[in-house]
Amino acid sequence: MTLQLRGRVAATLVGLDARSLVTTRQPEARVTFEGFAGDRHAGLTRPSDSRTPHYPRGTEIRNSRQVSLVSSEELAVIAALLGIPLVLPEWLGANILVAGIPHLTQISPSTRLFFAGGAVLVVDSENRPCIAPGKVIEAQHSRLPGIAGRFVAAAQGRRGIVAWVERPGAIREGDEMRAEVPHQVLYSQ
Amino acid sequence: MTLQLRGRVAATLVGLDARSLVTTRQPEARVTFEGFAGDRHAGLTRPSDSRTPHYPRGTEIRNSRQVSLVSSEELAVIAALLGIPLVLPEWLGANILVAGIPHLTQISPSTRLFFAGGAVLVVDSENRPCIAPGKVIEAQHSRLPGIAGRFVAAAQGRRGIVAWVERPGAIREGDEMRAEVPHQVLYSQ
Repeated sequence: MTLQLRGRVAATLVGLDARSLVTTRQPEARVTFEGFAGDRHAGLTRPSDSRTPHYPRGTEIRNSRQVSLVSSEELAVIAALLGIPLVLPEWLGANILVAGIPHLTQISPSTRLFFAGGAVLVVDSENRPCIAPGKVIEAQHSRLPGIAGRFVAAAQGRRGIVAWVERPGAIREGDEMRAEVPHQVLYSQ
Repeated sequence: MTLQLRGRVAATLVGLDARSLVTTRQPEARVTFEGFAGDRHAGLTRPSDSRTPHYPRGTEIRNSRQVSLVSSEELAVIAALLGIPLVLPEWLGANILVAGIPHLTQISPSTRLFFAGGAVLVVDSENRPCIAPGKVIEAQHSRLPGIAGRFVAAAQGRRGIVAWVERPGAIREGDEMRAEVPHQVLYSQ
């Protein structure tokens, strides 16, 4: 049995600066087979990095981390744990802020995300938190030293997901979206 | 916790004929970002079909069904259920016959398959059986009319998996292989 969930695109963002994690809001994103047009993570392939330690660093591999999605409900929990009013999706380098999908970060690999404008993304995996967004948050909160290090713990299981493009299209702020979770089977030998 | 399994490549096969399901054994397959070089299912994108009913037929989508894998143990069960001595991987249009991975068809989406020659495949999903391989099998067993229709039931949960290429390389008959099943979480709302 597949599971259907309905949510909403609360914001679309693009990583315009190749040297910075931070993304910038745009009312509409153009999505191609490479990812978000103009985004630093777009590409059919990418060099392997610390997230793929089974390859020599820099090996060209297929890019299954084209798009980063975070949940407004999960960001609110991270903010509460850090003791700050809010955590913005741009600080985490997210491309899509999703509202209304419970526990977005736990959604199964191969879940398909259908957007009103026709674009479809396929979930690769949970996006495990590293310290980089914590440093961005700390830079915004100079009265709270040490917040960078606390980010990783606060964001564990709440940092969102990465996905790749199955079907190009447009994704707009305010669009309805639908997640189709595939039939789940626990594999054991 | 990830789960590690070890198996072996019992055969490599290529779909040389664009009009036929049947694949042909070759001692070595060259694997690119498109799939098995020369195979009818190779390509970065593919037209959507009856397996993707959520798209208008023929829509260009990213090809996550580049490579078809079947298990020698599961084919033996299908053969026993059909009352024939064996079911060959070529009759199912498979590209890789795997030995030694229990319940291959149930392996989780996003499982990574590492081959000795450096190629890495990522599991998209179970390959649900249709009648086409049954017709190939029936053509080989003229004394057993009706076997085509019985194939779908016999192959349910045993017809193998489809996968896409994360890292190009060579895959050879006899190669060792390793499956890394990602940490499994059952998603619920």
